[in-house]
Amino acid sequence: MPVLAVAGVGLIGGSFAAALRRAGAVGRVLGVGRRPETLARARELGLIDEAVSAAEAAARADLLLLSVPVGATGQMLEALAPHLRADAIVTDAGSTKQDVVAAARAALGARIGQFVPGHPIAGSERSGPDAAHATLYDRRTVILTPLPENQAAQVARVRDAWQACGALVRQMPADTHDTALGSVSHLPHLLAFAYMAQVAGAADAALRLDLAGSGFRDFTRIAGGSPDMWRDIFLANRRAVLDEAAQVRRTLEAFETAIREGDADILGALIRAASQARHRWEAGLRGAADSTDNQE
Amino acid sequence: MPVLAVAGVGLIGGSFAAALRRAGAVGRVLGVGRRPETLARARELGLIDEAVSAAEAAARADLLLLSVPVGATGQMLEALAPHLRADAIVTDAGSTKQDVVAAARAALGARIGQFVPGHPIAGSERSGPDAAHATLYDRRTVILTPLPENQAAQVARVRDAWQACGALVRQMPADTHDTALGSVSHLPHLLAFAYMAQVAGAADAALRLDLAGSGFRDFTRIAGGSPDMWRDIFLANRRAVLDEAAQVRRTLEAFETAIREGDADILGALIRAASQARHRWEAGLRGAADSTDNQE
Repeated sequence: MPVLAVAGVGLIGGSFAAALRRAGAVGRVLGVGRRPETLARARELGLIDEAVSAAEAAARADLLLLSVPVGATGQMLEALAPHLRADAIVTDAGSTKQDVVAAARAALGARIGQFVPGHPIAGSERSGPDAAHATLYDRRTVILTPLPENQAAQVARVRDAWQACGALVRQMPADTHDTALGSVSHLPHLLAFAYMAQVAGAADAALRLDLAGSGFRDFTRIAGGSPDMWRDIFLANRRAVLDEAAQVRRTLEAFETAIREGDADILGALIRAASQARHRWEAGLRGAADSTDNQE
Repeated sequence: MPVLAVAGVGLIGGSFAAALRRAGAVGRVLGVGRRPETLARARELGLIDEAVSAAEAAARADLLLLSVPVGATGQMLEALAPHLRADAIVTDAGSTKQDVVAAARAALGARIGQFVPGHPIAGSERSGPDAAHATLYDRRTVILTPLPENQAAQVARVRDAWQACGALVRQMPADTHDTALGSVSHLPHLLAFAYMAQVAGAADAALRLDLAGSGFRDFTRIAGGSPDMWRDIFLANRRAVLDEAAQVRRTLEAFETAIREGDADILGALIRAASQARHRWEAGLRGAADSTDNQE
């Protein structure tokens, strides 16, 4: 791939560029962004070769990765659209897919086939170009949710790029992605934010927080996430998030009823099902990691 | 302290014995337990000197620590009571205090003054004597909830023992303890269990769990906790747990309403309050750790 353009040269976009460079899979890397100091830093770090406008990136790049907040995807695509080469492919890294696809259709119109939606399931507590590194995607899952308008070769090009980054690529429909990620990513964040807000708002919050231990620490770690990013994600995936939240509340109410009625048998069975599922998940993860390690 | 007896020689009791030995603060350590193989292992590891019956422990020990499930505290105290030396002090390590105090009053009657309720806020994913180590309580908080019937010297003896283990000892009323721990320990466990049960019960659970990442991992770590132990804790502290659960559900509903109405301002403010509180808590912890480190 002669020219890659990355819109948003932080952790996700910067690591994509770094990983493709490591693989020798890219010629020149263009960076697009709102903040000149971020672009300058990305250049200093060797993540990008030059900072350009959206129009110039669209005119020059073979592949463009959008790693901007999901709420800003439409606007970025509108800036790119008039200048986009007919043979260029655009992909994204947004945490939600149905809303991104809708924004892409609105911005690209008849050229929607050039957009291959994606979502790398990788992150970090850190952000910005300094957090970027070439190994972020090693053995991490990247989900593509191709459109009916995509040609197989266009999807393959995005898939190849992520595989060159070391990622494991899966494909599924956008709504399947949004439901699954709503459940295992967005809901934990929503619950952690709501729980943390409740504790911090209690009259004796200082005492409570003073007595909080390691369970609290791990459970609430994700409550430290970026407010702007998570606000956008919850709104973008609102249907799945609200559906799942209602179901979690119903399950929680079943636990509460067993506690209220002092029903040790039912309560024990509910907890045991959860605990066993968590242990199976952990064992599965370790198994997967082991088998991957064995292939190296 | 010439003779210590520990009922339940696992992580908590075994580490208490090991820490007191490290401090040179104990002569002989007696172990009490239901399972001979656990007692044999504790002896092999040097955590206890001999395994004895509850009656013999009561007759010989200066200090007795009960580190048994909270639901078993009453029964253990009933076994000890007829044989307890008049100058012996009994303390416990239970995660709930009001119910333990009620059980102790029922079991000890007029001798209730010999019981000083306590709760070390320390734990681990591991359990059993092999998990025990002398440094478990270093700089960890231990809460005592003394009774009106305790003499100052009796409380001081328990306090001194925990301080010899390296712990930071605090005192508060039992109901204050139960509310605070209900909030920052029991509720995260309840939410993690309920959330995990909901995910594992979904029709597409396999896909969901396959896509779960590091946020999910940390958020659900405590859902792997012991079902029997947590069932007992939720039932023992049911009033505080149900009160807090209702409040967390109300806060969650406020988040859901903002999402449903697409109110980015309110949603952003709710998330920001939670995120800032989490960052302040982390900074406070680091500050505390730093100042402790500086004293060494």
